[in-house]
Amino acid sequence: MAITIGNIKLKVPAGSKAILVKNLYLSCDPYMRHLMRSQGSLLLHSYTPGSPITGFGVAKALDSDHPDFKEGDLVWGTTGWEEYSLLTAPEGLFKIQHSDVPLSYYTGILGMPGLSAYAGFYEVCSPKKGKYVFVSAASGAVGQLVGQFAKLMGCNVVGSKAKKEKVELLKNKFGFDDAFNYKQEHDLTAALKRYFPEGIDIYFENVGGKMLDAVILNMRIHGRITVCGMISQYNLDQPEGVHNLMLIVYKRVRIEGFSVFDYYPQYSKFLDFVLPSIKDGKIKYVEDVAEGILLW
Amino acid sequence: MAITIGNIKLKVPAGSKAILVKNLYLSCDPYMRHLMRSQGSLLLHSYTPGSPITGFGVAKALDSDHPDFKEGDLVWGTTGWEEYSLLTAPEGLFKIQHSDVPLSYYTGILGMPGLSAYAGFYEVCSPKKGKYVFVSAASGAVGQLVGQFAKLMGCNVVGSKAKKEKVELLKNKFGFDDAFNYKQEHDLTAALKRYFPEGIDIYFENVGGKMLDAVILNMRIHGRITVCGMISQYNLDQPEGVHNLMLIVYKRVRIEGFSVFDYYPQYSKFLDFVLPSIKDGKIKYVEDVAEGILLW
Repeated sequence: MAITIGNIKLKVPAGSKAILVKNLYLSCDPYMRHLMRSQGSLLLHSYTPGSPITGFGVAKALDSDHPDFKEGDLVWGTTGWEEYSLLTAPEGLFKIQHSDVPLSYYTGILGMPGLSAYAGFYEVCSPKKGKYVFVSAASGAVGQLVGQFAKLMGCNVVGSKAKKEKVELLKNKFGFDDAFNYKQEHDLTAALKRYFPEGIDIYFENVGGKMLDAVILNMRIHGRITVCGMISQYNLDQPEGVHNLMLIVYKRVRIEGFSVFDYYPQYSKFLDFVLPSIKDGKIKYVEDVAEGILLW
Repeated sequence: MAITIGNIKLKVPAGSKAILVKNLYLSCDPYMRHLMRSQGSLLLHSYTPGSPITGFGVAKALDSDHPDFKEGDLVWGTTGWEEYSLLTAPEGLFKIQHSDVPLSYYTGILGMPGLSAYAGFYEVCSPKKGKYVFVSAASGAVGQLVGQFAKLMGCNVVGSKAKKEKVELLKNKFGFDDAFNYKQEHDLTAALKRYFPEGIDIYFENVGGKMLDAVILNMRIHGRITVCGMISQYNLDQPEGVHNLMLIVYKRVRIEGFSVFDYYPQYSKFLDFVLPSIKDGKIKYVEDVAEGILLW
């Protein structure tokens, strides 16, 4: 990665239907890893070397040639990792109507990850009170919300994570019933059996690989696995094989991948649910914010 | 396997609520392979060495101590691989009401495989006219019916099989739009791409392993994979890994295992559909019948 210094005219070309924004927050999300491959980026386009990478962000319009936007509007959606961006298809952006919450939340709980958690849990998992729910990568932008949504519904929720502090966060801040550090378990199947003696009804899948195999062995009859991502696989040239799929027949398990883009029409319904829950403290959200564009 | 000769009294013990049957047809079904493992038979019980193996069959009651059955009744359901069986839980059997079709059909098109095909296709696949449907093990007891059901609905159907004669059967007898011999394809992904240039909407999964990986690569957005079985894996000590699962996120694919037992309540509805279709020739059924209990 490189940072390039250049000049941009803070003015939208006339007739371009574009908007020019100052980027306020940029989000580093797991899906971006796929776009860094020259090929095999699945169904998404790849990043173009030499051009600014794109990602979700919060931005403020400085100039607009689009009828739906005007100077001063706050927006969230896909923008560039740069100080200012000329966005030529602003129709894909959401205008921010509620600015009495931290604006950075629109890259998290009020943005793509929040809607992912909401749609994935409420629409795809078919949750019910009393169900046993397991969430992997559970303190991530999506996982922490799925666990809290599940608790609000009266489910029994356990999360996994790789660090002791994150495990504590899950239990003490987000109200998970329990949590474990998967890196300290030499047998994931046995660990899940310990945390779910009755088995798992709903698995919110964020990691894939060995965890998925261990979960399948612990699923209950008619269980659901909702696949949001498989981050344990993203850096591998060849993804690990999953061996226990035959069990989904005997256990009548449904495994379903979903994409947040299919649920964009539900965004305002989602906001109606989540904004009051943030304000009255029913749902908590933890961010990891760094200032400036950093070089790793 | 061994055949044992013994004596049985052709009389039901008084008060046993059992029925005594003469077995007319016994069916050799893929799930039985699991029951031959001393462990790892998944959620099913294992066969007991030294006892007759059990399986689906058609039988005639010779004596009954159960109020629902009388001498002369024809039944299908789980019985023993033996000439006569004392069935102590006859509640699980279906009484055969229609005997104007070959009785052996109650081990196939009118029995467990037929109901599997019906429930798996109509209930789990969510099929619609014009969809692209792929069936593996397509001339098997289940596969040949799924393909024909899909054709009746106006889908485009391709099947795979391991032998030239079976491929011909799929095309010429069962009316599949096309069929191929997967053993003659060194690249299954490319083969599927050739038969499904637009991609696959519905995959009726009977084989698992490499075929499943190749199918996932060829699935369309919002496609469905209905898992009935994975016969390519049954003889392996360690099932093959499936590597392309991450794609189900980007393609929003649903993979769902099902068990015919959940659909037993629909059996009479199924008969109302399938019996007329057999009689007017809309659905064809091919059996492989051997006489006597054979030693392999």
